Amino acid sequence: MANAEIIAIGSELLTPQRLDTNSLAITEALNNLGVEVTGKQVVGDDRQRLTDAIRESLQRAEVVILCGGLGPTEDDVTRDAAAQALQRKLLFSPEQEAILAQFFQRLNRTMADNNRRQAYLIQGGEALPNPNGTAPGQFVKTDKGALVLLPGPPRELKPMMANHVVPRLRAMLPLQVIKVRSFRITGIGESDLDRMIAPIYTKYTNPATTILFASGDLFVHLRARCDTEKEADALLKEVGDPIAETLGNLIYTDDANEPLEGVIGRMLRHQKASLVTAESCTGGLIAARLTSLPGSSQSFLGGFVTYTDMQKQKVLGVSAELICERTAVCEEVAAAMADGARDRTGATYALSTTGYAGPDGGTEKDPVGTVYVGVSAPHETVVQRIQHGGDRERVRTYSTQSALNILRKVLQNHC
Amino acid sequence: MANAEIIAIGSELLTPQRLDTNSLAITEALNNLGVEVTGKQVVGDDRQRLTDAIRESLQRAEVVILCGGLGPTEDDVTRDAAAQALQRKLLFSPEQEAILAQFFQRLNRTMADNNRRQAYLIQGGEALPNPNGTAPGQFVKTDKGALVLLPGPPRELKPMMANHVVPRLRAMLPLQVIKVRSFRITGIGESDLDRMIAPIYTKYTNPATTILFASGDLFVHLRARCDTEKEADALLKEVGDPIAETLGNLIYTDDANEPLEGVIGRMLRHQKASLVTAESCTGGLIAARLTSLPGSSQSFLGGFVTYTDMQKQKVLGVSAELICERTAVCEEVAAAMADGARDRTGATYALSTTGYAGPDGGTEKDPVGTVYVGVSAPHETVVQRIQHGGDRERVRTYSTQSALNILRKVLQNHC
Repeated sequence: MANAEIIAIGSELLTPQRLDTNSLAITEALNNLGVEVTGKQVVGDDRQRLTDAIRESLQRAEVVILCGGLGPTEDDVTRDAAAQALQRKLLFSPEQEAILAQFFQRLNRTMADNNRRQAYLIQGGEALPNPNGTAPGQFVKTDKGALVLLPGPPRELKPMMANHVVPRLRAMLPLQVIKVRSFRITGIGESDLDRMIAPIYTKYTNPATTILFASGDLFVHLRARCDTEKEADALLKEVGDPIAETLGNLIYTDDANEPLEGVIGRMLRHQKASLVTAESCTGGLIAARLTSLPGSSQSFLGGFVTYTDMQKQKVLGVSAELICERTAVCEEVAAAMADGARDRTGATYALSTTGYAGPDGGTEKDPVGTVYVGVSAPHETVVQRIQHGGDRERVRTYSTQSALNILRKVLQNHC
Repeated sequence: MANAEIIAIGSELLTPQRLDTNSLAITEALNNLGVEVTGKQVVGDDRQRLTDAIRESLQRAEVVILCGGLGPTEDDVTRDAAAQALQRKLLFSPEQEAILAQFFQRLNRTMADNNRRQAYLIQGGEALPNPNGTAPGQFVKTDKGALVLLPGPPRELKPMMANHVVPRLRAMLPLQVIKVRSFRITGIGESDLDRMIAPIYTKYTNPATTILFASGDLFVHLRARCDTEKEADALLKEVGDPIAETLGNLIYTDDANEPLEGVIGRMLRHQKASLVTAESCTGGLIAARLTSLPGSSQSFLGGFVTYTDMQKQKVLGVSAELICERTAVCEEVAAAMADGARDRTGATYALSTTGYAGPDGGTEKDPVGTVYVGVSAPHETVVQRIQHGGDRERVRTYSTQSALNILRKVLQNHC
């Protein structure tokens, strides 16, 4: 198994405005070859610092990919630094100079003197054609692998990676198959999830298991690397099946690209049912998620954001006495909001939230972070109390996720 | 001037799906202190590799910031690696354990055993409080500077950086006065903005000018570094005043921390006026932004998401004939939605959107990306047609920003 490191070069990538995004496309191409990216970094336009970084990467990884710093100016130090790190010479290539001259001729421009710098190749290296710019790439075989120099602009880098680097690396690497199995999970914390499935996955290094976590949404990815597809499938079954069994209904989908709102939309369409929302503390976030996917109007009719007590009464018909007696944050109001929204729109289901997003508000019984979620369905209205910590944004985001998950479970029961 | 390096930790950041974006906010905070970022890297959850990386960074830079890997699982190796790189011990802190226990108690959850790992501090290090999560940060003074450990989730990392790391670093750095003047701008593209103000700011290296851009929201930051406050103020006036004059009403606030919805809330409270929304294509995003700030219920009553034609009729009273004749995406429907929402709720103002978010839909006259924005106000209803490119998410986000900006201008006229 080969490892790779990626070094992006350019002082502008060390400002608060810019990110190196080339490494994502490079990582994907490498992963598809069975090459793991074990580190990546950004180095400024500093010859000595870059030379050191390349030398260290070459010691750690079989494949080292450099992006950027191949331009014609003094700032462009990648060729020099790479040659120095390999302790090889830079040789002027009249052939590359001719290609550069042709490129400028096609654009009807005169070639500047400093563009000649771009015609220098590392001894033993191979030039990679760049139809979209002036800087050729370079592919240099090393004792244990390869050092690759790519231009920084994505429209130059991406085709060069696909057309010239991938075939050369594939020819050097043992042939392997990579297959992925994913689970998306919600309704549980990251450490609880890990506690449940670590006894299963930690026994294996292949498949490699990754757990990702974002705003109450969890992902488990298993990636198997084998000689044949059959072996990979068998491994994913061996590890994935017990994980699926352990997690049960905490898993809302095994499609890595289907968010929770996608699952809900699919269930609604399947039931030929419709949905409306009645939000207080989530303030429109649930509606915004439900409408984030194309085609959502097939089952999502719309929603109400009733932020004040008066609007809950006026728009959804929640009784003034109830609010006066129990406040707007309670089980009964959540139920009345959902029922009111369903009545007024004729939808099959309605989903409601009322709670304390903070930083102010809350009671001893229901502190900030408490949210009542209501689901009004044909023949039943379900209310659940949830509680999340953190600031206003976190409470709102997590409550949105929890509310959608409560709806998912009700929809399952009506299937 | 001090240099810094940033190391983001996490194998998920080495996949084709994820980027380290924390380093941008960290870089900005460091730059504001006069600290330059000279390198950044991503390392997987590999104890030895991370230890080496930290040790090398500490040799090169005065300040080293680590993000992530402070969770409760086996995978979370940052504490161990940092201690090893510094050749210091990890000490269990009963005080931190108590704080963790309290955090779980507040959430009514039992603390898992492995969360105790998060109560270990590097010898000589100081715990940094994390009100938004379980992992405390750590600030460790070194011979020539500091090593800082921050949790990975942005909502935990950002406040910790601002409230606990910046003050500690400032106290260690040579005294200089740094003053910032900011403008927040919307309704113009990034390159147009730059074209307008570059003739002013490029004449100066002090103050340093930064232009940031996010989803139709632009920021201009001028950062002056001087020996005295008076000099800094004079510089900011010399450069800032002509910029303010050139941009005029494109500037919606000069408070760096006040988003557009904050400006609108302030104007509404000042007018003792109230607001409702009636959204189609933005699907709740406008309501979600208006309710994102605490205290928004003072002026924001609530909203309607009328996603289907039927709901526009039923809930807002838009005429079926009008929709039949002109479709739901037109000036008249935007006006009728806003007027209907205002009538039904008794609000002073109503803001509506109807348009094609894509990828499907649209006409030759009104292609995907076209949105009609309506504002119903006490003596007038204003409709404006806007158009944004890109995918569904971009159209929805940019349209939300444009709609809020149109409302801001109407509110200004009613002041």
